[in-house]
Amino acid sequence: MTSAPSSASRTFAGGMWSFGRIIDRYATDGYGPEIGTLRTIELAAASGELVGLDLNYPFDAGVGVADVKAALDAHGLVATNITPVIYDRRFRSGSFTGADAATRRAAHDLAEESVDVAAALGARYVKFWPGQDGYDYPFQVDYPTLRRHAVEGIRDVARNHPDVTFGIEYKLKEPRNRLFWSTAAASLLAIERTGVDNVGLVVDFGHSLFAKENPAEALSLAHETGRLVDVEVDDNYREWDDDLTAGALHLVETLEFLHVVREIGWQHPVKLDLFPYREDPGDAVRESVATLRALEERAARLPLDELRAAQAAHDAMTAQRLVRTALFG
Amino acid sequence: MTSAPSSASRTFAGGMWSFGRIIDRYATDGYGPEIGTLRTIELAAASGELVGLDLNYPFDAGVGVADVKAALDAHGLVATNITPVIYDRRFRSGSFTGADAATRRAAHDLAEESVDVAAALGARYVKFWPGQDGYDYPFQVDYPTLRRHAVEGIRDVARNHPDVTFGIEYKLKEPRNRLFWSTAAASLLAIERTGVDNVGLVVDFGHSLFAKENPAEALSLAHETGRLVDVEVDDNYREWDDDLTAGALHLVETLEFLHVVREIGWQHPVKLDLFPYREDPGDAVRESVATLRALEERAARLPLDELRAAQAAHDAMTAQRLVRTALFG
Amino acid sequence: MTSAPSSASRTFAGGMWSFGRIIDRYATDGYGPEIGTLRTIELAAASGELVGLDLNYPFDAGVGVADVKAALDAHGLVATNITPVIYDRRFRSGSFTGADAATRRAAHDLAEESVDVAAALGARYVKFWPGQDGYDYPFQVDYPTLRRHAVEGIRDVARNHPDVTFGIEYKLKEPRNRLFWSTAAASLLAIERTGVDNVGLVVDFGHSLFAKENPAEALSLAHETGRLVDVEVDDNYREWDDDLTAGALHLVETLEFLHVVREIGWQHPVKLDLFPYREDPGDAVRESVATLRALEERAARLPLDELRAAQAAHDAMTAQRLVRTALFG
Amino acid sequence: MTSAPSSASRTFAGGMWSFGRIIDRYATDGYGPEIGTLRTIELAAASGELVGLDLNYPFDAGVGVADVKAALDAHGLVATNITPVIYDRRFRSGSFTGADAATRRAAHDLAEESVDVAAALGARYVKFWPGQDGYDYPFQVDYPTLRRHAVEGIRDVARNHPDVTFGIEYKLKEPRNRLFWSTAAASLLAIERTGVDNVGLVVDFGHSLFAKENPAEALSLAHETGRLVDVEVDDNYREWDDDLTAGALHLVETLEFLHVVREIGWQHPVKLDLFPYREDPGDAVRESVATLRALEERAARLPLDELRAAQAAHDAMTAQRLVRTALFG
Repeated sequence: MTSAPSSASRTFAGGMWSFGRIIDRYATDGYGPEIGTLRTIELAAASGELVGLDLNYPFDAGVGVADVKAALDAHGLVATNITPVIYDRRFRSGSFTGADAATRRAAHDLAEESVDVAAALGARYVKFWPGQDGYDYPFQVDYPTLRRHAVEGIRDVARNHPDVTFGIEYKLKEPRNRLFWSTAAASLLAIERTGVDNVGLVVDFGHSLFAKENPAEALSLAHETGRLVDVEVDDNYREWDDDLTAGALHLVETLEFLHVVREIGWQHPVKLDLFPYREDPGDAVRESVATLRALEERAARLPLDELRAAQAAHDAMTAQRLVRTALFG
Repeated sequence: MTSAPSSASRTFAGGMWSFGRIIDRYATDGYGPEIGTLRTIELAAASGELVGLDLNYPFDAGVGVADVKAALDAHGLVATNITPVIYDRRFRSGSFTGADAATRRAAHDLAEESVDVAAALGARYVKFWPGQDGYDYPFQVDYPTLRRHAVEGIRDVARNHPDVTFGIEYKLKEPRNRLFWSTAAASLLAIERTGVDNVGLVVDFGHSLFAKENPAEALSLAHETGRLVDVEVDDNYREWDDDLTAGALHLVETLEFLHVVREIGWQHPVKLDLFPYREDPGDAVRESVATLRALEERAARLPLDELRAAQAAHDAMTAQRLVRTALFG
Repeated sequence: MTSAPSSASRTFAGGMWSFGRIIDRYATDGYGPEIGTLRTIELAAASGELVGLDLNYPFDAGVGVADVKAALDAHGLVATNITPVIYDRRFRSGSFTGADAATRRAAHDLAEESVDVAAALGARYVKFWPGQDGYDYPFQVDYPTLRRHAVEGIRDVARNHPDVTFGIEYKLKEPRNRLFWSTAAASLLAIERTGVDNVGLVVDFGHSLFAKENPAEALSLAHETGRLVDVEVDDNYREWDDDLTAGALHLVETLEFLHVVREIGWQHPVKLDLFPYREDPGDAVRESVATLRALEERAARLPLDELRAAQAAHDAMTAQRLVRTALFG
Repeated sequence: MTSAPSSASRTFAGGMWSFGRIIDRYATDGYGPEIGTLRTIELAAASGELVGLDLNYPFDAGVGVADVKAALDAHGLVATNITPVIYDRRFRSGSFTGADAATRRAAHDLAEESVDVAAALGARYVKFWPGQDGYDYPFQVDYPTLRRHAVEGIRDVARNHPDVTFGIEYKLKEPRNRLFWSTAAASLLAIERTGVDNVGLVVDFGHSLFAKENPAEALSLAHETGRLVDVEVDDNYREWDDDLTAGALHLVETLEFLHVVREIGWQHPVKLDLFPYREDPGDAVRESVATLRALEERAARLPLDELRAAQAAHDAMTAQRLVRTALFG
């Protein structure tokens, strides 16, 4: 295992969407004004805590890759990854698993474009978040077909670019009631079926939590399979993807997640996936990072030999004591 | 108890929003094209199954009350109620419980306007769905203040119009993570504190279900307190307000809900609260109504004396048998 | 408001059940050996952190009230309250709401006995936890009858003893799938209907959490109505009454709960409701108390003026910052 | 695909536990009297609807395999499978994943014994339900070690008996808060890692439902991987393993599950996993079977060509209509 970074050297990335206009089905006029692609980059940089950005593609009309590159450079940010928008109106009933071949082809084509954009921006990977790939009602789809489309769609893109890394961000539901890439294990099982080596998993703490996983265990599993591509953090009430600030509710489980992040020697930025509907996104980022730094500093205090001994004995009360002492002295 | 209507004479109403453009935080370009106020009325009528419509107010720019009245009349629909939009950007952090007095005043004023509109359209009541009244994070609000604003805000409007009926549609969460008007009991308790007689409850089957209530029990409670104002139906996976077609998943609990609807002698239309993101709204209405009619026809087959005897003995297996027999012969 | 006790002076009570043999439907031979009534008192005292005990009644065969009194005295413990066992085999289908009058009478009689035992032991109140009062299946019970029995059963006992305090511990479910005394608001509404002044609410942090309430808000509501009788703490995964050690998972919400405990000037011991299936109960108590003391010490650091200002503005990010700073410096 | 059996020829099996004394942490005196091994067989047969029984091993003290064989024969029942009790006090902190080698060895030895018992009784397979294999608290275990023990423990038994079939019944939680064999996908992924061919999955409708899967999809996945060993049915409120009668709540999803049971040509008995705490177990079995027969008869009415066309188009409203028509004509 590589040596873990100190909490001081831990870096953070963000999602472009956290800085844009958020909208939902009730506040259809948005929770704030329209904010363009380039402005989100400025705002992300202004948070003062981010080194990189997860970028949705396509960008705004009229904004080219070179414009984005220039904005990132100007603000000292990198593109951590490109996330093609395979979940808007065009793909409302599925992207790679859409019912008609033309939609599946459109998803494929957008993915191909995203590979080019990622290369142009020097992004580490292309992320798929297939948020419309699934179904809503019993009896709505044929499951073998859904599985086949899901696996083949990703595989076909990945095979075309054996040197590019692809990460799938799983989520139990929303906007579909049932998503195909639902849990860490379901996704790893399907990824194995792609038969390619360059597709892996993005483990989002919040997605894991409301999928009824323990996020630290899911992260450990993804790492062990050699398929871990990225790590995202946020928080929620265990039932929905609330995208609250990191550590807002689940400090112990966030601490354990960061402990595993350290144990596996994670060297890339940890990404924040926030939806600050009513908050200033800069505040939400800073508050999250401050909490994560405090927690990682506590994680560094954990007496690892004692902890491992307690874990070898499944000794919950000793583990709790060590955690409490690390947190509160 | 008044004699229950036969299932043949049961009528249904809908929500204007089911026929408009639905949008969410991912498909920010909407699940379909823009649809104006008057067109939603046309589409609602075209479903062929509705006698009335729950109308959000304000209407589209340029559409007056007289226009809406004319459209309703032309299509043979009534306005069941007016629902002021106290949950858009202006009220994103609360309407009657907003932090600043100006926002609370704006909510009050919009409610007052809605009373006028309801009168002009002959609507039976004004509905409040205070979907932004609550909070997202622990420590975010002072609970006594939140309660006071919630109760006083509604009370002040209701006192001004003692002859007008107001109904509060409770919901556990969304878009806020925690809503004040959360459950049937929490809402009835707060309504008691208003000290007025003309405020009651809108019981939505789906809201009740994911608030971890049994909808039939919640409906019975609201009726018993004399505070039942309206009844809405839909379905979900018990964790979120999915607004699926009625009976899509929970046939037995929908049947029990309809059984209570009959037992209490409900005479008004039963309202559908659907969000057909990817479906034709007319189809969603027709499918819901067909299921509800089938279920009510089965509810009418329940041998009430035997059922009451089983219930008096808390005899679940006999009750199940009677239900199964009513459903499947 | 009375002045809040310092965290140093905060005292804790426990539940007798935490020290006895725990059993469940799978480990039907129990998670440990049989432990008698008097031995649980010894073990509770030996934890070194408790001043009082919630005692289930009846005691073991052959153990009299005087024996219990002597054991409590010998170990320097008080009986905080008596909890009649209205949820064992005899009451498996309901106690005060049981289908037959004889069962309801038996519940009444056991409650009456418990009043005597409470008096003999100097307990502050009699607690009802009506864990079998509810139902499991749709259509199983008639809701108006269930409500009537629930309210009248408690009322009849309370009326007989106007100088005795009774507390109802609400819980959403378990062992019944649906319990009558389900949420804080549902219980307060029903308590109002008893028409008596000496019945109130026991707010258990864990029960509140998995009833999808925010425990701090529920506690504040119970206090405001003048119906708060006792306060219990523990933790769970928000879906079931796991009865884990306090603060094991939800540190921020436990902190907020303790903040309200302080704000309302709570002077009685805070009670632990733990089920340490596989852990030493003394360890579980000590670990819980250590966490609660650490959290209360942090609660005492909260800058109340700043917090109130943030809450008046519904300013989540400032509230989060104050909480984080209190927790981690 | 083999031709599906008609609903008339569908047979059912039960679990021995449904007919024995049920106990839980509150009714520690049990929901009824003690009932011995041989008596449960009698009662199962007396239900009149079962052809086989899932048998927990060890049997009661003094009851030998020959006694059980004789009782089964006398009542015309078969042993569908043997389920070693790897979840009682001895294994309270884990069986194959227990912290100490002696416990893991004990689990192995009991599994070996169960193989012999299964052979003696002619059972089709040995079922593992590792209900204590997991953890309760964050930081309690080392996840790589847990995974290794879980996989190796099962593998070692299976390798010793390449001609014996083993089935793992997954469950998200209970009695542990977090179980290792949690979901269909997590279990299939781990089963792949055993590297043996004779270990598969038992898909329980209720377990799948509260693991937030769609049971029909989970069943389809298990079948497709060639790892489906058995199928169990029951119902619950989607949050816990309530083990209600089949179809008590989720008729549509139960119908879809039965539809997949038919599509995959399942020929073995469908097993009921019920915990009739307060009901007569014979009634619970008969009510479940009657509902399942009614639903399978409706499943047989589904127009498969139309359904497949709707599914190919992801056409939820048409699928709903076909389902409704099959259910209600």
